[in-house]
Amino acid sequence: MNACLYYYDVIVIGAGHAGTEAAAAAARLGAKTALLTTNLDTVGQMSCNPAIGGVAKGQIVREVDALGGLMGEAIDATAIQFRMLNRRKGPAMHSPRAQADKKAYQQFIKHRIELQDNLDLRQETVEDLIIDESGESPQVAGVRVRGNAEYRAPTIVLTTGTFLQAIMHTGEAKTAGGRGGEGTTSGISGALARLGFEVERFKTGTPPRLNARTIDYSKLEEQPGDDDPQGFSFLTDKVVTEQVPCHITYTNESVHELIRANLDRAPMYSGQINSQGPRYCPSIEDKVVRFADKSQHQLFLEPEGHDTQEVYVNGISTSLPRDVQDEMFKRIEGLQNASIMRYGYAVEYDFCPPTQLWSHLESKSVKGLFFAGQINGTTGYEEAAGQGLIAGLNAALTVAGKPTWVPSRDQAYIGVLVDDLVTAGTDEPYRMFTSRAEYRLLLRQDNADRRLTAQADSLGLISSERRERFAKKLADIDRGFELLKATRVADTPGDVYLRRPEVDWSTMCQVNSELQAIESSAAQQCLFDIKYEGYISRQKMEVEKAQRLAGKRIPATFDYAKIRALRNEAREKFCKVRPLSLDQAKRISGITPADIALVLAYLEAK
Amino acid sequence: MNACLYYYDVIVIGAGHAGTEAAAAAARLGAKTALLTTNLDTVGQMSCNPAIGGVAKGQIVREVDALGGLMGEAIDATAIQFRMLNRRKGPAMHSPRAQADKKAYQQFIKHRIELQDNLDLRQETVEDLIIDESGESPQVAGVRVRGNAEYRAPTIVLTTGTFLQAIMHTGEAKTAGGRGGEGTTSGISGALARLGFEVERFKTGTPPRLNARTIDYSKLEEQPGDDDPQGFSFLTDKVVTEQVPCHITYTNESVHELIRANLDRAPMYSGQINSQGPRYCPSIEDKVVRFADKSQHQLFLEPEGHDTQEVYVNGISTSLPRDVQDEMFKRIEGLQNASIMRYGYAVEYDFCPPTQLWSHLESKSVKGLFFAGQINGTTGYEEAAGQGLIAGLNAALTVAGKPTWVPSRDQAYIGVLVDDLVTAGTDEPYRMFTSRAEYRLLLRQDNADRRLTAQADSLGLISSERRERFAKKLADIDRGFELLKATRVADTPGDVYLRRPEVDWSTMCQVNSELQAIESSAAQQCLFDIKYEGYISRQKMEVEKAQRLAGKRIPATFDYAKIRALRNEAREKFCKVRPLSLDQAKRISGITPADIALVLAYLEAK
Repeated sequence: MNACLYYYDVIVIGAGHAGTEAAAAAARLGAKTALLTTNLDTVGQMSCNPAIGGVAKGQIVREVDALGGLMGEAIDATAIQFRMLNRRKGPAMHSPRAQADKKAYQQFIKHRIELQDNLDLRQETVEDLIIDESGESPQVAGVRVRGNAEYRAPTIVLTTGTFLQAIMHTGEAKTAGGRGGEGTTSGISGALARLGFEVERFKTGTPPRLNARTIDYSKLEEQPGDDDPQGFSFLTDKVVTEQVPCHITYTNESVHELIRANLDRAPMYSGQINSQGPRYCPSIEDKVVRFADKSQHQLFLEPEGHDTQEVYVNGISTSLPRDVQDEMFKRIEGLQNASIMRYGYAVEYDFCPPTQLWSHLESKSVKGLFFAGQINGTTGYEEAAGQGLIAGLNAALTVAGKPTWVPSRDQAYIGVLVDDLVTAGTDEPYRMFTSRAEYRLLLRQDNADRRLTAQADSLGLISSERRERFAKKLADIDRGFELLKATRVADTPGDVYLRRPEVDWSTMCQVNSELQAIESSAAQQCLFDIKYEGYISRQKMEVEKAQRLAGKRIPATFDYAKIRALRNEAREKFCKVRPLSLDQAKRISGITPADIALVLAYLEAK
Repeated sequence: MNACLYYYDVIVIGAGHAGTEAAAAAARLGAKTALLTTNLDTVGQMSCNPAIGGVAKGQIVREVDALGGLMGEAIDATAIQFRMLNRRKGPAMHSPRAQADKKAYQQFIKHRIELQDNLDLRQETVEDLIIDESGESPQVAGVRVRGNAEYRAPTIVLTTGTFLQAIMHTGEAKTAGGRGGEGTTSGISGALARLGFEVERFKTGTPPRLNARTIDYSKLEEQPGDDDPQGFSFLTDKVVTEQVPCHITYTNESVHELIRANLDRAPMYSGQINSQGPRYCPSIEDKVVRFADKSQHQLFLEPEGHDTQEVYVNGISTSLPRDVQDEMFKRIEGLQNASIMRYGYAVEYDFCPPTQLWSHLESKSVKGLFFAGQINGTTGYEEAAGQGLIAGLNAALTVAGKPTWVPSRDQAYIGVLVDDLVTAGTDEPYRMFTSRAEYRLLLRQDNADRRLTAQADSLGLISSERRERFAKKLADIDRGFELLKATRVADTPGDVYLRRPEVDWSTMCQVNSELQAIESSAAQQCLFDIKYEGYISRQKMEVEKAQRLAGKRIPATFDYAKIRALRNEAREKFCKVRPLSLDQAKRISGITPADIALVLAYLEAK
């Protein structure tokens, strides 16, 4: 019996945050695209916390949006709370974050995928990769799926999340599966091993979910949304939602004692799990061990939607046995009677160290095979979405015989992300931070469209609506500058006068009422361009200098303790590796260009 | 390491249509109830078509609602189309049906469960049943779940759907699992076998789902909803939804030829499946074989929600291989370019012949073990919900030391259902029909509350809101009769005058304007009570007679072909078994009291 054959340009395997962006991007470019997932009911599912954005991550969402991606519009349409983080800091630190109605978010993403031209979303279980080895180097030919069928395509994007050879742990109990209640995928791991890919293991975890009906909110601190909620997408004029609050409570010494007394039963400490978890999203047992001096840890209760009582307990990710999870909550203010609906667990899964990829996320060894998301060793929905978009875009460009494209480090956090991954790899699940970006005054959440949308347009990624809105905004910004320059305040041109700290946009509008016609997001761009001009140019000069001097040698005896501003992690790693040049230092996993700039500055100052 | 122990009164395993009603009913009675499911994201999921109700089934939904259940309110809140079927027939045949927004329905049910007092919904995988065998007969003690924990309770309700030892078939491809993309459950089957339960296999199937974007609706016949949509729940005053149409198309000879040419690859015909499927919901390959003379079969396209493009193709359930499924649609009007999102499949699963149960759905051999839904060999969401409610109710009554309760055959379709199941069992997935009910003029959709709500109240099943609304309605009905009797039309009392065929309620309102104050659902009851009084009394007399004469002998040579009104199925079975008494005839699986009544009438007429 011959297999059924289906022909496509791009096949995307997995329909999470990476896979959906990859498929949508490829289809937008006109590639005939198949998006295959083992379960259509989990397309776009938020496997862990019900939130999008946050520091550095919110910036990525706005970049994904500026490139025509799905995530920004999805969260704008389905959020139940919006908060702009770091509002009191400079604009480079402003970071949008929103709580999602988890099910509505999932449905929005799935619906957009269903509506996308050139894209077939199909429930399939991929059993193997088909590789053409007749040429000089192996080239992707398609995938074999369960039920005697093959999808043929010259490009494949792998976005398997935590589902490759997945094992879930809750205390001593181990189960095969990548998410509670679901299974695992093994055929692809086998194929990757056969093709000679280096495959390693990471672990991640998720906290218990509680029933809101059983939480005593009167004892908890409330955290409401912003009064003036801001959306993520450049297409969203105004977000409309009935905002619901999150709540805060804390662990305490009694909880920590309980955890310490049961550490031998925690898979991470009993030896049952050896793989590395996300440093910046540690389990509660990790926190208790690593920060032994802290008497409490904050827990952040996130509602999972308007129409559900499920509550995500951010801060208490754990793989401790269920009896310990039961007992923990009995000791936490407000949660004494909480009913656990799902227990926390850790999951171990395969990933492929991303140093095996080009920066456009195609494999160096197998032509046409792209990787995005957790399979590259990253963590986070936003990191996954950014990679997915890049992988899907470049798969489609490759099929069309066009040159690949990735944003540079000075153009996008997504550029930083892919450059970090393919250059340095990662020895723990990689998460984005503003500190990883050396150009972070340039990479603001507010200007993602100015950084990326023109390029996205030339690549064919965006809709005519987005093109028109963006052109209008650029015209508004130009008009703003014109008006400012034409305005005089006590003989000073308006664009110069506006630099003064005490002067803001509304002051200028009083001087020249024509400025009131400038749309607020355009006005903000004029303002930031003028206010931060000095900082930005200085940063650019520093980075140029750093690039020039990247080859500079470091003495073997260099004392990193002297560089106060250095992050602890960087200091630890430098001390361990003792790099002999800045170039070598730069390649150490987890070391950021910002760390290098600090070392360089110190070396030059001596 | 000791297992974690959780103590409950009632444990419900499985959170589909049976399990959620069972758990909610038990909890409403005050029993401390645990509802355990392997995946919280599939609570209340519609595994097959996105619709609730229909002929005989709509009546069950109204009964479930009259007993305080969830299904009626859930569909009223989440329907995307309402149709009252059989409107042109008498009121006993009026049957409400609605298309559901499948995801919204699921979320509504889950949310209600989350909000229910005394009820803990928890994601758990049950590995075994715990039975106390120390007494005279075995007695349920609890369940063991994955992760070294036990739930202890004196009663358990098993509602495992198609998940026991489930195998899915699409052509030659077999997969373990009870629903696309999900797994199976084996521990419970083992426990049932160990306890000596008879376990058999049934199969059922589901059709492919298509992407609406790829359907040419211009070529299809539209079926809109009713202009005056009617809800299911007695608590719903008015249903509010933006109704969407269904669409109709047909198979043709070319499709049938394709199927015939591939019959050897259909699991049901190749011998790969031996178990019995639902006679009244046959696969397309079944239809083509059984109704070889038909040149077309109707296909009914049901949208799965407001926010999805998935379309359910009612009428083309199949386990044919995927290449045949692909090709079938290419030959069907309007579906030539349709993209299949999920392939159809058949699923084989374990069930326990329900003759092993008392009519309150408790096992005869293991005390405290209740069964409801597909595990009893039934098919249909409504049949499952009705049984679930009965099982959960009786589990809670048992725990409270109170007498059990089930509706009688003259009280509810649910009474017919459980009586049929425990009396005759079933040799194919059991579905409800009006023909199964001998008292069907009594068992109307419009009077389910009058039949059941007072009883439900005395059992503790209903809310004060429902009690008050029901009392108000009864008072309105009484008032209606009073007013009618006090009204004179040409010296005839109003209640007598209303019997005339040309007279309706509005006529009477013109005569006595006070009647306008009677709420419409109460007025309808007065009207039907009066209009159909003759039929109803006659039916009651016939049934009484049938009961009296149930022992009557049938000649071995009796010619069933002479009874024209007999259903084909009944005639086939009678001819095969050749029962020698009406009592024996009655016990034949699939034979309804209505069939018996026909035979009796014929015997008496001779």
